[in-house]
Order: sequence, then structure tokens, then C-alpha cells
Amino acid sequence: MRKLKTIEMNRLTVEEFKEAPKLPLVVVLDDVRSLYNVGSVFRSGDAFRIERICLCGITATPPNAEIHKTALGGEDSVDWRYYETTEEAVEALRGDGYFVYSIEQVKGSTMLQDLGERLMGAPSGRRYAVIFGNEVKGVKQSVVDLSDGCLEIPQFGTKHSLNVSVTAGIVIWEFARHLLLGDSPAE
Amino acid sequence: MRKLKTIEMNRLTVEEFKEAPKLPLVVVLDDVRSLYNVGSVFRSGDAFRIERICLCGITATPPNAEIHKTALGGEDSVDWRYYETTEEAVEALRGDGYFVYSIEQVKGSTMLQDLGERLMGAPSGRRYAVIFGNEVKGVKQSVVDLSDGCLEIPQFGTKHSLNVSVTAGIVIWEFARHLLLGDSPAE
Repeated sequence: MRKLKTIEMNRLTVEEFKEAPKLPLVVVLDDVRSLYNVGSVFRSGDAFRIERICLCGITATPPNAEIHKTALGGEDSVDWRYYETTEEAVEALRGDGYFVYSIEQVKGSTMLQDLGERLMGAPSGRRYAVIFGNEVKGVKQSVVDLSDGCLEIPQFGTKHSLNVSVTAGIVIWEFARHLLLGDSPAE
Repeated sequence: MRKLKTIEMNRLTVEEFKEAPKLPLVVVLDDVRSLYNVGSVFRSGDAFRIERICLCGITATPPNAEIHKTALGGEDSVDWRYYETTEEAVEALRGDGYFVYSIEQVKGSTMLQDLGERLMGAPSGRRYAVIFGNEVKGVKQSVVDLSDGCLEIPQFGTKHSLNVSVTAGIVIWEFARHLLLGDSPAE
């Protein structure tokens, strides 16, 4: 099994990325403190070709040397906007017709393994937004209340808390698996 | 949608974790440099209740203050072993009957969205190991050569490179989705 050379990977240029059809998914960061997490979300957003990242509140914005260190250029390809408050971002997204999920452990949340069924049952062409919260506090209750629903990653350990950039990677992958790769749940 | 209190999350104690049935998955870190990545893999390993982490070569081991900062105690619940070389770890795992995947972009790799079919077609009770490589070099060719197969996360952007801890989170989630949650691919 020979490892691929970089030239064999069909990587897009930044210009090609900007023009290419996107995963219909916007990522919203609600007061994310760590520059490492912001950078990593840009890198994952590039890998799965998401539409946009909304950086809200205390979340740092590019250009920033620390973000660049983990984004590795993802901050040049992935579109982003800054909002003073996460509530403002969510209201704008819902006004534009996006279905907005907070990623949180709440009563009645949709477990991530059931996302496929929800996506299949939704009107075709629907676009989505997913909100990831602060490292300590999670998504603010006021932002949860503005959302159309909550998505939760099931957990089985002693902590029930995943790193923000890991959580974002898993959730973006699930959307990509269903919406880009057409991997449908069993009937 | 009310956010759950910590007490409502049914978190295991470390003792309960040690006794609980595990996801039949061992994670192998091949010369992973960043303590942040090592800690994050412990945290994800705790969340999805994996069997063990094999720390190889230059990969740091607990106890370590920097690992603790991102593992948040995952290094106390998840079992781990150290091996001088990754080759040694892979040979031991294969000798114990594990099916070993390197996570790499190689010619003929299994794309991650096809993992479910492979798992369904495998003998029941099979246990798995997944190898994540160095931040810059990936999994060593000599380690790829010792593996039973390669798994690849499809990517659509300008970089074709995800952070090690994000990659580990996505791959562990896929095994958990199939083997813990029984989320099967469509027939």
C-alpha cells in the first residue's frame, strides 16, 4: 500500500475552492476562547468544504498568527464573518432559511447517529448551521433557545465532554457523509 | 430545550469505566509529537470507551501536566501501554488477532464511509486497531506495510490534511457508531 504523494491528492487551489459547490453547512462559534480550536475548525471546514464560519463574541478572527498555525491556510479558503453576538448570527441564519442546530446535551436532543434520518426527512435543498459553544460553558442557553433543534454526540465515558475542535470535526463529518457522499441510513 | 446538568449525564466513575464492556478498538499513536494531540486522544478515547491506547516511539506518556490539560482525566480511565517502536505494537496487536488499519491516504485505501460494509462483512467478535501518524510525516511506510489495510477520510478542500486529534475523533466515532450503536449501512 503506497502512500500518496501530495500531487496525487487532487487538492483544490484557493480560487477553485471559492468557486466549487459547498457542503450546505455553516459553522457558528459561540464565544470560543481557544485560538487552537478556531484554527482547527478552519482546517476541518476546508477539508469538508463548508459554506462559511461565523465567529461570534469573544471568538478571535483572522488574520492571527496562532489561528494560522492550526488552520494551515484554511482561513484563506473558507469564507467567514464576524458577529458581535451569537444571537445576531443565529437570527440572520434563520432569516436566510437555514435550519440551526446547537451542539449540546439537552433534554430531547437528536442523537448524532439519528441525523441521517432527519436529513432524509427534510425538504430537499435545505441548508444547515451548527453552533459550537465555549470550552467551559458550552452553547449559551439563550442561543439554544433560538435554535431549531439540538444535536448531541452520544458519549460513554467518565467525562461526557469532548474537545471543541474534535466535536466540530465529528459533526461536520456526519453532515459531509450524508450530504456530500450520500451515505444514507438503512431503511 | 433545557441543557442537562452534569448529574443527569450518567457519567461513569473510573472504576465503572474499567469494568464496563469496551468498544473493541485500540488506538495506536505512531511518533505523535504534540502533547495536545495525545491528551485529546485520551479524552476522545474516554468518551467512546475504547479498549486501550498504544503510545509509540517519541509519543509522550502520562503522567504529564500538558497531556492532563487536554485529557481532563481521560488518562486515568483509558488503559494505555508504551512501545519503543510502532512496529512492535502492530506485531503484538496482530499476534493477538486484531485487524489493524493505518489511517493514511494510500492507493487502494478503504474510504471511511465504506467502513460499515467492511465491519458487517467481517467475522463477528473481531477487534480492531487504528494507527494515527506523526503530525508532519503521517504513518511511517514501514508501519503501513505491516497493517492489514488503510482507512482514509475523504477530503474536498485545499489541504487534504486534518489535525491528528480531529482525525482520531472522526475515526473513533465511526467505529462507535457501527459497533456500539449498531448504525448499519443501507442494504
